[in-house]
Amino acid sequence: MTNKKGQVIVITGPSGVGKGTILKNVMEADKSLCFSVSATTRAARPGEVDGVDYYFVTRERFDEMVKDGELLEYAEYSGNCYGTPRKPLEKLLNEGYDVILDIEIQGARNVMKTFPEAIFTFIMPPSFETLEKRLLKRGTETPEKMALRLETAKRELECFKEFQYIIVNDKLEDAVEDFKAVIRAGRCRCSEYIKNKRGI
Amino acid sequence: MTNKKGQVIVITGPSGVGKGTILKNVMEADKSLCFSVSATTRAARPGEVDGVDYYFVTRERFDEMVKDGELLEYAEYSGNCYGTPRKPLEKLLNEGYDVILDIEIQGARNVMKTFPEAIFTFIMPPSFETLEKRLLKRGTETPEKMALRLETAKRELECFKEFQYIIVNDKLEDAVEDFKAVIRAGRCRCSEYIKNKRGI
Repeated sequence: MTNKKGQVIVITGPSGVGKGTILKNVMEADKSLCFSVSATTRAARPGEVDGVDYYFVTRERFDEMVKDGELLEYAEYSGNCYGTPRKPLEKLLNEGYDVILDIEIQGARNVMKTFPEAIFTFIMPPSFETLEKRLLKRGTETPEKMALRLETAKRELECFKEFQYIIVNDKLEDAVEDFKAVIRAGRCRCSEYIKNKRGI
Repeated sequence: MTNKKGQVIVITGPSGVGKGTILKNVMEADKSLCFSVSATTRAARPGEVDGVDYYFVTRERFDEMVKDGELLEYAEYSGNCYGTPRKPLEKLLNEGYDVILDIEIQGARNVMKTFPEAIFTFIMPPSFETLEKRLLKRGTETPEKMALRLETAKRELECFKEFQYIIVNDKLEDAVEDFKAVIRAGRCRCSEYIKNKRGI
Protein backbone atom coordinates (compact mmCIF):
# COMPACT_ATOMS: atom_id res chain seq x y z
CA MET A 1 0.00 0.00 0.00
CA THR A 2 0.97 3.69 -0.24
CA ASN A 3 1.79 5.87 2.74
CA LYS A 4 -1.79 7.07 2.82
CA LYS A 5 -3.68 6.45 6.05
CA GLY A 6 -7.02 4.67 5.82
CA GLN A 7 -10.44 5.73 7.04
CA VAL A 8 -12.75 4.03 9.53
CA ILE A 9 -16.18 3.01 8.25
CA VAL A 10 -18.84 1.99 10.73
CA ILE A 11 -21.77 -0.12 9.59
CA THR A 12 -24.63 -0.78 11.95
CA GLY A 13 -28.31 -1.60 11.99
CA PRO A 14 -30.68 -4.09 13.58
CA SER A 15 -29.88 -7.77 13.67
CA GLY A 16 -31.09 -9.56 10.51
CA VAL A 17 -30.99 -6.47 8.27
CA GLY A 18 -28.36 -8.04 6.01
CA LYS A 19 -25.17 -6.20 7.03
CA GLY A 20 -23.08 -9.35 6.62
CA THR A 21 -24.21 -10.00 3.04
CA ILE A 22 -23.70 -6.38 1.99
CA LEU A 23 -20.22 -6.37 3.52
CA LYS A 24 -19.24 -9.64 1.86
CA ASN A 25 -20.15 -8.24 -1.56
CA VAL A 26 -18.45 -4.89 -1.04
CA MET A 27 -15.24 -6.37 0.37
CA GLU A 28 -14.86 -8.88 -2.44
CA ALA A 29 -14.90 -5.99 -4.92
CA ASP A 30 -12.42 -3.73 -3.13
CA LYS A 31 -9.11 -5.07 -1.90
CA SER A 32 -8.19 -1.88 -0.06
CA LEU A 33 -10.92 -2.65 2.49
CA CYS A 34 -10.32 -4.60 5.67
CA PHE A 35 -12.65 -5.95 8.26
CA SER A 36 -12.12 -5.23 11.93
CA VAL A 37 -12.62 -8.54 13.75
CA SER A 38 -14.60 -7.97 16.96
CA ALA A 39 -14.13 -9.83 20.20
CA THR A 40 -17.31 -11.39 21.61
CA THR A 41 -18.47 -13.52 24.48
CA ARG A 42 -21.34 -15.01 22.45
CA ALA A 43 -21.18 -18.60 21.23
CA ALA A 44 -20.05 -19.21 17.65
CA ARG A 45 -22.85 -19.93 15.16
CA PRO A 46 -22.42 -22.90 12.82
CA GLY A 47 -19.78 -22.04 10.23
CA GLU A 48 -18.28 -19.10 12.11
CA VAL A 49 -14.50 -19.19 12.45
CA ASP A 50 -12.55 -17.85 15.43
CA GLY A 51 -10.23 -15.01 14.37
CA VAL A 52 -12.12 -14.52 11.09
CA ASP A 53 -15.75 -13.79 12.02
CA TYR A 54 -15.04 -12.94 15.65
CA TYR A 55 -12.51 -13.54 18.35
CA PHE A 56 -14.59 -15.81 20.58
CA VAL A 57 -13.51 -15.16 24.15
CA THR A 58 -14.71 -15.95 27.66
CA ARG A 59 -16.34 -13.33 29.82
CA GLU A 60 -13.22 -13.26 32.02
CA ARG A 61 -10.92 -12.58 29.06
CA PHE A 62 -13.31 -9.89 27.79
CA ASP A 63 -13.34 -8.10 31.14
CA GLU A 64 -9.55 -8.21 31.16
CA MET A 65 -9.41 -6.61 27.67
CA VAL A 66 -11.69 -3.83 28.89
CA LYS A 67 -9.59 -3.29 32.00
CA ASP A 68 -6.32 -3.18 30.02
CA GLY A 69 -7.70 -0.66 27.50
CA GLU A 70 -7.33 -3.14 24.63
CA LEU A 71 -10.78 -2.26 23.22
CA LEU A 72 -11.61 0.85 21.22
CA GLU A 73 -15.28 0.44 22.09
CA TYR A 74 -17.41 -2.24 23.65
CA ALA A 75 -21.04 -2.81 24.45
CA GLU A 76 -23.34 -5.45 25.86
CA TYR A 77 -26.09 -6.62 23.54
CA SER A 78 -28.73 -9.33 24.04
CA GLY A 79 -26.77 -10.64 27.02
CA ASN A 80 -23.43 -10.88 25.19
CA CYS A 81 -20.41 -8.57 25.07
CA TYR A 82 -18.88 -7.24 21.85
CA GLY A 83 -15.78 -5.07 21.45
CA THR A 84 -13.30 -3.72 18.88
CA PRO A 85 -9.64 -4.54 19.58
CA ARG A 86 -7.65 -1.31 19.19
CA LYS A 87 -4.19 -2.42 18.02
CA PRO A 88 -5.10 -4.43 14.89
CA LEU A 89 -7.34 -1.53 13.77
CA GLU A 90 -4.60 1.07 14.08
CA LYS A 91 -2.12 -1.17 12.30
CA LEU A 92 -4.46 -1.60 9.32
CA LEU A 93 -5.18 2.14 9.11
CA ASN A 94 -1.46 2.91 9.10
CA GLU A 95 -0.96 0.39 6.31
CA GLY A 96 -3.44 2.41 4.23
CA TYR A 97 -6.45 0.12 4.49
CA ASP A 98 -9.95 1.43 5.03
CA VAL A 99 -11.27 -0.52 7.99
CA ILE A 100 -14.88 -1.56 8.36
CA LEU A 101 -16.41 -1.92 11.81
CA ASP A 102 -19.58 -4.02 11.78
CA ILE A 103 -20.87 -3.19 15.24
CA GLU A 104 -24.00 -2.71 17.34
CA ILE A 105 -25.58 0.72 17.74
CA GLN A 106 -24.21 1.32 21.23
CA GLY A 107 -20.73 0.46 19.96
CA ALA A 108 -21.19 2.84 17.01
CA ARG A 109 -22.09 5.60 19.44
CA ASN A 110 -18.88 4.94 21.34
CA VAL A 111 -16.85 5.16 18.11
CA MET A 112 -18.45 8.57 17.45
CA LYS A 113 -16.53 9.75 20.50
CA THR A 114 -13.21 8.03 19.70
CA PHE A 115 -13.24 8.46 15.89
CA PRO A 116 -15.62 11.31 15.06
CA GLU A 117 -14.07 11.45 11.57
CA ALA A 118 -15.27 7.89 10.82
CA ILE A 119 -18.12 7.32 8.37
CA PHE A 120 -21.30 6.15 10.09
CA THR A 121 -23.74 4.06 8.09
CA PHE A 122 -27.05 2.63 9.26
CA ILE A 123 -28.60 -0.24 7.29
CA MET A 124 -32.39 -0.06 7.21
CA PRO A 125 -34.82 -2.84 6.23
CA PRO A 126 -37.50 -1.90 3.68
CA SER A 127 -40.11 -2.69 6.37
CA PHE A 128 -40.26 -4.14 9.87
CA GLU A 129 -42.07 -7.20 8.53
CA THR A 130 -39.17 -7.99 6.19
CA LEU A 131 -36.79 -7.83 9.12
CA GLU A 132 -39.00 -10.11 11.22
CA LYS A 133 -39.14 -12.69 8.42
CA ARG A 134 -35.36 -12.64 7.94
CA LEU A 135 -34.73 -13.14 11.64
CA LEU A 136 -37.22 -16.02 11.92
CA LYS A 137 -35.67 -17.70 8.87
CA ARG A 138 -32.23 -17.62 10.45
CA GLY A 139 -33.62 -19.77 13.31
CA THR A 140 -30.44 -19.97 15.37
CA GLU A 141 -32.05 -18.67 18.56
CA THR A 142 -34.44 -19.91 21.22
CA PRO A 143 -37.96 -18.34 21.10
CA GLU A 144 -37.13 -16.21 24.16
CA LYS A 145 -33.94 -14.88 22.63
CA MET A 146 -35.78 -14.26 19.35
CA ALA A 147 -38.45 -12.20 21.11
CA LEU A 148 -35.69 -10.20 22.78
CA ARG A 149 -33.95 -9.63 19.43
CA LEU A 150 -37.18 -8.38 17.82
CA GLU A 151 -37.82 -6.00 20.69
CA THR A 152 -34.26 -4.70 20.43
CA ALA A 153 -34.54 -4.34 16.64
CA LYS A 154 -37.69 -2.24 16.98
CA ARG A 155 -35.95 0.08 19.42
CA GLU A 156 -32.82 0.25 17.29
CA LEU A 157 -34.69 1.29 14.15
CA GLU A 158 -35.65 4.46 15.94
CA CYS A 159 -31.98 5.47 16.27
CA PHE A 160 -31.31 5.89 12.55
CA LYS A 161 -31.24 9.68 12.82
CA GLU A 162 -27.96 9.56 14.72
CA PHE A 163 -26.17 8.25 11.62
CA GLN A 164 -24.77 10.09 8.60
CA TYR A 165 -25.91 7.62 5.97
CA ILE A 166 -29.01 5.44 5.71
CA ILE A 167 -28.89 2.57 3.26
CA VAL A 168 -32.18 0.77 2.67
CA ASN A 169 -31.50 -2.91 2.05
CA ASP A 170 -34.38 -3.58 -0.31
CA LYS A 171 -32.54 -4.84 -3.40
CA LEU A 172 -29.16 -6.21 -2.35
CA GLU A 173 -27.35 -4.95 -5.51
CA ASP A 174 -28.52 -1.40 -4.83
CA ALA A 175 -27.51 -1.53 -1.18
CA VAL A 176 -24.08 -2.83 -2.20
CA GLU A 177 -23.62 -0.01 -4.74
CA ASP A 178 -24.80 2.52 -2.16
CA PHE A 179 -22.28 1.31 0.38
CA LYS A 180 -19.48 1.34 -2.23
CA ALA A 181 -20.40 4.94 -3.07
CA VAL A 182 -20.38 5.96 0.59
CA ILE A 183 -16.87 4.52 0.98
CA ARG A 184 -15.55 6.07 -2.25
CA ALA A 185 -17.07 9.46 -1.44
CA GLY A 186 -15.53 9.16 2.02
CA ARG A 187 -12.11 9.00 0.40
CA CYS A 188 -12.88 12.25 -1.43
CA ARG A 189 -13.69 14.13 1.77
CA CYS A 190 -11.66 17.29 2.24
CA SER A 191 -10.39 15.99 5.58
CA GLU A 192 -8.99 12.88 3.83
CA TYR A 193 -7.32 15.04 1.18
CA ILE A 194 -5.63 17.10 3.87
CA LYS A 195 -4.67 13.99 5.87
CA ASN A 196 -3.02 12.35 2.87
CA LYS A 197 -1.85 15.51 1.07
CA ARG A 198 -2.21 14.44 -2.52
CA GLY A 199 -1.93 16.68 -5.54
CA ILE A 200 -1.01 20.32 -5.03
CA MET B 1 -40.10 10.75 -11.73
CA THR B 2 -41.26 9.85 -8.22
CA ASN B 3 -42.45 12.35 -5.63
CA LYS B 4 -38.96 12.46 -4.19
CA LYS B 5 -37.29 15.87 -4.11
CA GLY B 6 -33.82 16.16 -5.63
CA GLN B 7 -30.60 17.41 -4.12
CA VAL B 8 -28.38 20.29 -5.19
CA ILE B 9 -24.80 19.44 -6.14
CA VAL B 10 -22.28 22.24 -6.51
CA ILE B 11 -19.13 21.66 -8.55
CA THR B 12 -16.44 24.28 -8.58
CA GLY B 13 -12.71 24.71 -9.08
CA PRO B 14 -10.32 26.84 -11.08
CA SER B 15 -10.88 27.51 -14.74
CA GLY B 16 -9.31 24.80 -16.92
CA VAL B 17 -9.43 22.06 -14.29
CA GLY B 18 -11.77 19.95 -16.41
CA LYS B 19 -15.14 20.41 -14.69
CA GLY B 20 -16.99 20.43 -18.02
CA THR B 21 -15.55 17.09 -19.17
CA ILE B 22 -16.21 15.40 -15.83
CA LEU B 23 -19.78 16.68 -15.84
CA LYS B 24 -20.42 15.55 -19.39
CA ASN B 25 -19.35 11.99 -18.53
CA VAL B 26 -21.30 11.83 -15.29
CA MET B 27 -24.49 13.24 -16.76
CA GLU B 28 -24.49 10.91 -19.72
CA ALA B 29 -24.45 7.96 -17.30
CA ASP B 30 -27.21 9.18 -14.97
CA LYS B 31 -30.51 10.41 -16.33
CA SER B 32 -31.77 11.60 -12.95
CA LEU B 33 -29.21 14.42 -13.08
CA CYS B 34 -29.92 17.83 -14.52
CA PHE B 35 -27.71 20.77 -15.21
CA SER B 36 -28.58 24.21 -13.92
CA VAL B 37 -27.99 26.60 -16.83
CA SER B 38 -26.30 29.78 -15.58
CA ALA B 39 -26.91 33.26 -16.89
CA THR B 40 -23.75 35.11 -17.93
CA THR B 41 -22.67 38.38 -19.46
CA ARG B 42 -19.58 36.84 -21.03
CA ALA B 43 -19.39 36.24 -24.78
CA ALA B 44 -20.19 32.75 -26.07
CA ARG B 45 -17.16 30.61 -26.98
CA PRO B 46 -17.20 28.77 -30.32
CA GLY B 47 -19.69 25.92 -30.11
CA GLU B 48 -21.52 27.18 -27.02
CA VAL B 49 -25.30 27.29 -27.37
CA ASP B 50 -27.57 29.85 -25.70
CA GLY B 51 -29.97 28.16 -23.25
CA VAL B 52 -27.88 25.00 -23.18
CA ASP B 53 -24.39 26.00 -22.03
CA TYR B 54 -25.44 29.38 -20.64
CA TYR B 55 -28.11 31.97 -20.99
CA PHE B 56 -26.08 34.71 -22.66
CA VAL B 57 -27.48 38.04 -21.51
CA THR B 58 -26.49 41.69 -21.62
CA ARG B 59 -25.22 43.46 -18.53
CA GLU B 60 -28.48 45.42 -18.36
CA ARG B 61 -30.59 42.24 -18.36
CA PHE B 62 -28.31 40.67 -15.74
CA ASP B 63 -28.65 43.66 -13.42
CA GLU B 64 -32.41 43.45 -13.85
CA MET B 65 -32.38 39.74 -12.86
CA VAL B 66 -30.39 40.60 -9.74
CA LYS B 67 -32.77 43.44 -8.87
CA ASP B 68 -35.86 41.26 -9.34
CA GLY B 69 -34.47 38.43 -7.17
CA GLU B 70 -34.46 36.02 -10.12
CA LEU B 71 -30.98 34.71 -9.22
CA LEU B 72 -30.20 32.26 -6.43
CA GLU B 73 -26.59 33.42 -6.41
CA TYR B 74 -24.42 35.56 -8.61
CA ALA B 75 -20.82 36.66 -8.74
CA GLU B 76 -18.46 38.65 -10.92
CA TYR B 77 -15.49 36.77 -12.22
CA SER B 78 -12.73 37.88 -14.61
CA GLY B 79 -14.82 40.91 -15.55
CA ASN B 80 -17.98 38.94 -16.35
CA CYS B 81 -21.12 38.23 -14.35
CA TYR B 82 -22.48 34.73 -13.69
CA GLY B 83 -25.67 33.76 -11.88
CA THR B 84 -28.04 30.85 -11.18
CA PRO B 85 -31.69 31.44 -12.16
CA ARG B 86 -33.84 30.38 -9.22
CA LYS B 87 -37.12 29.19 -10.79
CA PRO B 88 -35.84 26.51 -13.19
CA LEU B 89 -33.71 25.07 -10.37
CA GLU B 90 -36.64 24.75 -7.97
CA LYS B 91 -38.82 23.22 -10.67
CA LEU B 92 -36.23 20.53 -11.41
CA LEU B 93 -35.74 19.70 -7.71
CA ASN B 94 -39.49 19.33 -7.23
CA GLU B 95 -39.60 16.99 -10.23
CA GLY B 96 -37.12 14.75 -8.40
CA TYR B 97 -33.99 15.62 -10.38
CA ASP B 98 -30.65 16.15 -8.71
CA VAL B 99 -29.43 19.47 -10.03
CA ILE B 100 -25.79 20.25 -10.70
CA LEU B 101 -24.52 23.80 -10.36
CA ASP B 102 -21.22 24.34 -12.18
CA ILE B 103 -20.26 27.68 -10.68
CA GLU B 104 -17.35 29.86 -9.61
CA ILE B 105 -16.05 29.77 -6.05
CA GLN B 106 -17.69 33.00 -4.98
CA GLY B 107 -21.01 31.68 -6.32
CA ALA B 108 -20.49 28.40 -4.43
CA ARG B 109 -19.96 30.36 -1.25
CA ASN B 110 -23.24 32.13 -1.83
CA VAL B 111 -25.04 28.79 -2.31
CA MET B 112 -23.62 27.65 1.05
CA LYS B 113 -25.84 30.33 2.58
CA THR B 114 -28.97 29.62 0.49
CA PHE B 115 -28.67 25.82 0.27
CA PRO B 116 -26.43 24.65 3.12
CA GLU B 117 -27.71 21.11 2.55
CA ALA B 118 -26.23 21.06 -0.97
CA ILE B 119 -23.16 18.94 -1.73
CA PHE B 120 -20.06 21.04 -2.34
CA THR B 121 -17.33 19.59 -4.54
CA PHE B 122 -14.04 21.20 -5.49
CA ILE B 123 -12.16 19.87 -8.52
CA MET B 124 -8.39 20.00 -8.07
CA PRO B 125 -5.72 19.68 -10.77
CA PRO B 126 -2.91 17.16 -10.06
CA SER B 127 -0.48 20.11 -10.17
CA PHE B 128 -0.52 23.81 -11.00
CA GLU B 129 1.61 23.14 -14.10
CA THR B 130 -1.04 20.79 -15.48
CA LEU B 131 -3.64 23.49 -15.02
CA GLU B 132 -1.46 26.08 -16.73
CA LYS B 133 -0.94 23.80 -19.74
CA ARG B 134 -4.67 23.06 -20.06
CA LEU B 135 -5.54 26.75 -19.98
CA LEU B 136 -2.90 27.67 -22.57
CA LYS B 137 -4.09 24.87 -24.85
CA ARG B 138 -7.63 26.18 -24.77
CA GLY B 139 -6.34 29.44 -26.29
CA THR B 140 -9.63 31.31 -26.41
CA GLU B 141 -8.36 34.33 -24.47
CA THR B 142 -6.12 37.31 -25.07
CA PRO B 143 -2.73 37.12 -23.26
CA GLU B 144 -3.91 39.72 -20.73
CA LYS B 145 -7.06 37.77 -19.92
CA MET B 146 -5.02 34.56 -19.70
CA ALA B 147 -2.63 36.11 -17.19
CA LEU B 148 -5.64 37.23 -15.15
CA ARG B 149 -7.14 33.74 -15.28
CA LEU B 150 -3.91 32.14 -14.08
CA GLU B 151 -3.63 34.59 -11.21
CA THR B 152 -7.23 33.90 -10.25
CA ALA B 153 -6.69 30.13 -10.51
CA LYS B 154 -3.73 30.30 -8.14
CA ARG B 155 -5.79 32.21 -5.58
CA GLU B 156 -8.76 29.86 -6.02
CA LEU B 157 -6.72 26.72 -5.38
CA GLU B 158 -6.12 28.00 -1.89
CA CYS B 159 -9.86 27.90 -1.14
CA PHE B 160 -10.27 24.14 -1.40
CA LYS B 161 -10.61 23.75 2.38
CA GLU B 162 -14.02 25.41 2.30
CA PHE B 163 -15.47 22.49 0.37
CA GLN B 164 -16.75 19.11 1.55
CA TYR B 165 -15.24 17.03 -1.23
CA ILE B 166 -11.99 17.36 -3.17
CA ILE B 167 -11.75 15.44 -6.42
CA VAL B 168 -8.31 15.38 -8.03
CA ASN B 169 -8.69 15.36 -11.81
CA ASP B 170 -5.60 13.35 -12.65
CA LYS B 171 -7.09 10.41 -14.55
CA LEU B 172 -10.46 11.46 -15.99
CA GLU B 173 -12.10 8.02 -15.41
CA ASP B 174 -11.22 8.15 -11.72
CA ALA B 175 -12.50 11.69 -11.30
CA VAL B 176 -15.75 10.69 -13.02
CA GLU B 177 -16.20 7.68 -10.72
CA ASP B 178 -15.39 9.85 -7.70
CA PHE B 179 -18.01 12.39 -8.66
CA LYS B 180 -20.60 9.64 -9.28
CA ALA B 181 -19.86 8.25 -5.81
CA VAL B 182 -20.23 11.67 -4.20
CA ILE B 183 -23.66 12.07 -5.82
CA ARG B 184 -24.82 8.55 -4.94
CA ALA B 185 -23.59 8.85 -1.35
CA GLY B 186 -25.36 12.20 -1.19
CA ARG B 187 -28.64 10.41 -1.89
CA CYS B 188 -27.95 8.11 1.07
CA ARG B 189 -27.51 10.97 3.51
CA CYS B 190 -29.76 10.74 6.52
CA SER B 191 -31.21 14.18 5.72
CA GLU B 192 -32.27 12.91 2.26
CA TYR B 193 -33.85 9.82 3.81
CA ILE B 194 -35.89 11.99 6.15
CA LYS B 195 -36.80 14.43 3.35
CA ASN B 196 -38.10 11.68 1.13
CA LYS B 197 -39.36 9.28 3.83
CA ARG B 198 -38.64 5.98 2.19
CA GLY B 199 -38.82 2.59 3.88
CA ILE B 200 -40.02 2.38 7.47
